[in-house]
Amino acid sequence: MSFRHKHILGTEQLSREDIELILDTADSLKEINSREIKKVPTLRGKTIVNLFYEASTRTRTSFEIAGKRLSADTINMTASTSSVTKGETLEDTAKNIQAMKPDIIVMRHSASGAPHYLAERIDCSVINAGDGAHEHPSQALLDLLTIRQHKGKLEGLTVAIVGDITHSRVARSDLYAMTKMGMKVRLCGPGTMMPPGIERLGAEVFTDMDDAVRDADVVMMLRIQLERQGKTLLPTLREYARLYGLNPARLALAKPDAIVMHPGPLNRGVEISSYVADGKQSVILDQVENGVAVRMALLYLVAGGEASES
Amino acid sequence: MSFRHKHILGTEQLSREDIELILDTADSLKEINSREIKKVPTLRGKTIVNLFYEASTRTRTSFEIAGKRLSADTINMTASTSSVTKGETLEDTAKNIQAMKPDIIVMRHSASGAPHYLAERIDCSVINAGDGAHEHPSQALLDLLTIRQHKGKLEGLTVAIVGDITHSRVARSDLYAMTKMGMKVRLCGPGTMMPPGIERLGAEVFTDMDDAVRDADVVMMLRIQLERQGKTLLPTLREYARLYGLNPARLALAKPDAIVMHPGPLNRGVEISSYVADGKQSVILDQVENGVAVRMALLYLVAGGEASES
Amino acid sequence: MSFRHKHILGTEQLSREDIELILDTADSLKEINSREIKKVPTLRGKTIVNLFYEASTRTRTSFEIAGKRLSADTINMTASTSSVTKGETLEDTAKNIQAMKPDIIVMRHSASGAPHYLAERIDCSVINAGDGAHEHPSQALLDLLTIRQHKGKLEGLTVAIVGDITHSRVARSDLYAMTKMGMKVRLCGPGTMMPPGIERLGAEVFTDMDDAVRDADVVMMLRIQLERQGKTLLPTLREYARLYGLNPARLALAKPDAIVMHPGPLNRGVEISSYVADGKQSVILDQVENGVAVRMALLYLVAGGEASES
Repeated sequence: MSFRHKHILGTEQLSREDIELILDTADSLKEINSREIKKVPTLRGKTIVNLFYEASTRTRTSFEIAGKRLSADTINMTASTSSVTKGETLEDTAKNIQAMKPDIIVMRHSASGAPHYLAERIDCSVINAGDGAHEHPSQALLDLLTIRQHKGKLEGLTVAIVGDITHSRVARSDLYAMTKMGMKVRLCGPGTMMPPGIERLGAEVFTDMDDAVRDADVVMMLRIQLERQGKTLLPTLREYARLYGLNPARLALAKPDAIVMHPGPLNRGVEISSYVADGKQSVILDQVENGVAVRMALLYLVAGGEASES
Repeated sequence: MSFRHKHILGTEQLSREDIELILDTADSLKEINSREIKKVPTLRGKTIVNLFYEASTRTRTSFEIAGKRLSADTINMTASTSSVTKGETLEDTAKNIQAMKPDIIVMRHSASGAPHYLAERIDCSVINAGDGAHEHPSQALLDLLTIRQHKGKLEGLTVAIVGDITHSRVARSDLYAMTKMGMKVRLCGPGTMMPPGIERLGAEVFTDMDDAVRDADVVMMLRIQLERQGKTLLPTLREYARLYGLNPARLALAKPDAIVMHPGPLNRGVEISSYVADGKQSVILDQVENGVAVRMALLYLVAGGEASES
Repeated sequence: MSFRHKHILGTEQLSREDIELILDTADSLKEINSREIKKVPTLRGKTIVNLFYEASTRTRTSFEIAGKRLSADTINMTASTSSVTKGETLEDTAKNIQAMKPDIIVMRHSASGAPHYLAERIDCSVINAGDGAHEHPSQALLDLLTIRQHKGKLEGLTVAIVGDITHSRVARSDLYAMTKMGMKVRLCGPGTMMPPGIERLGAEVFTDMDDAVRDADVVMMLRIQLERQGKTLLPTLREYARLYGLNPARLALAKPDAIVMHPGPLNRGVEISSYVADGKQSVILDQVENGVAVRMALLYLVAGGEASES
């Protein structure tokens, strides 16, 4: 097995074959997570730095557990305690971390492109754990793994992604990945939350949620991130929930066996009703579980993919 | 060896036999802590999440060291960096952590009952590391281990617990555990800090500290937690120290071989004088040392208690 | 191999032979860092507590990576989440940590002498990771390792250290260490940043930077720490850069093969120009890399220096 990428910066750079290799690797690693002893020595002696400029316990924990199950050493560096507060440039921070010889840096940053900037300047692998409103590739890959697990395939499926598309790195990474896998992607949200020209990336755009959801195989709700709504005309939350919230009546428009997804954390009663979030079509917790497997696969593949079963 | 509890939520749920098994296990694990190589592979491949909604380096560090000495992987999640700040419900946070397949969650929360709520909703073991003013079972168990170590027994001993009983999860856990072990528990504090009806749990209540301490085998002082005194009539600190502080004269009323305990951190000069805290009857640092052993025992027992000496 | 120090509190207490042993040990450990599997089991089962009362991701991460490469368990304790906020004394905190039986405490504190105070009161080893404006011995040792690596020797070299000498623990530790190794140390800065009488420690004092740099083998720039300038007459930053900044013209006064050092993080355009910081004479990133090796050496030596290659 070989993997041609040193970095995982976005799904935009991944081919269909890359994605299939990642998903297959994650599937094989899921067996480790179900074993009594969950640890394999694959990345023993490797150092992974989780460099998080935005707080995100969820994603950081998922990467940290993934690294530890592969026996890597994990080091957490967060912005609040790091040299960024002392005015150091990102490039200097990067070169300093590099000088300590980690094998992989997992990076979250509020600025789009920050992991790419880092990757161009250092020797070790960089995995983008979310950069601004740009990409969040591990989230898109765990979404695909979850869909494939429940549907048995990806090709030909119709996915409706609903919410603030403009500010969603999840939507962007999903769009790149899903279109490559032969899926039909419908993007839905108020006009103020829809980036102009997004159709050119292969998406179909909807402002009416009923139309977007109708006959879909997958309905993916995005979290309304109030902290990111500064420049858009946010409708009131109640109005938003009425127009773009997923409730049982609206879900009934999708295929009878449609699955419901959400990257979390949930705003219950806003973009998704509790009845749907906890219902039998919801695969939200499968997404979280698959997140650890996908991140193990990414760490394993960028580290060279050689199993050293010592 | 088998242990019938999946969770450790409080000493209220533990039987005398449970407590004896925990203390005996802790005693045997103390030998590991005194060895040159302090680590055993017992929990290798197990994942422990320290989920702390209240800051507590002391308890978190004790659990983290305990987990690492058993070779478990430990992950720290603190409220300030977690999804709670994004408005997620405790149940959703719990289910998300559960989906990452940890083996044990060690939880501290400001709300009484939070660990019980968690335990009902997830598959893995939950250990309560302090919930509001309710319980702090590992503290009570390390108290018992310390008393047994110094007195050779528990049955029949008289313990005076002095301070803000109403707000003390330590006092509550100690009261449940000590009465089960056949100890006589005296609770002492100003009337405003004494929960009405606490006698029904088997305690004798005192407002005069001299009476409470007289002929006691153990004098346990509680920390005055100024941050919790909002609704009570707090006497001035000087007045409090005069009426309810442990000084040499007052300690002389207890048995000559009485031991002095405190869960820490100390308010020197308030609830305890430095002379007493640092005196030869003080076993306060033994409590801290025994804390690691008791937490190793709890982690070991809820994880199944099977030693895998590989 | 044996090492006569239990603690590393400052370079003031180290002899020339001690320093040579540390540098030689670091050199041999650098090979581990360049191997495919970077980990050795030397400190397996040992517990290292990183007790940081001042935020410093850089130094903490370097120590954490060093500890993990030696297979020690590392525990991070930071002031913001610890009992210091509850009014506990440093001595009580120390004794509490000690009771948990760590093998080494790595301590940073804003008060000069705090690690010494700790070392006198506890049984385990203490390594000073920076105390106030007093010492930062691991920084001085990595500086020496870097100079020796580039110059092949230390004896007889001339070093110019430029900046706020008064508030620099780096300058103080370097001064002690370098004079012991037979190096000539020139200290340079505005009079308000120069401690009176520093000449008695063997330094030559300059206020004119051109004079200080002329024919030097090493030019070491200190970070202007604006947060520490409260009581001194700080010139404006532009004025400071003009008088005490390292630019190509000034560097040309040093020996042609002079190396440029900086403990980081850099204030580009203030104490050092980007052209110099990124130029071929700069060894700033070698310092960071050598930091991990020196810290591995210190941890190894205070832990007993016995290699247990199991």
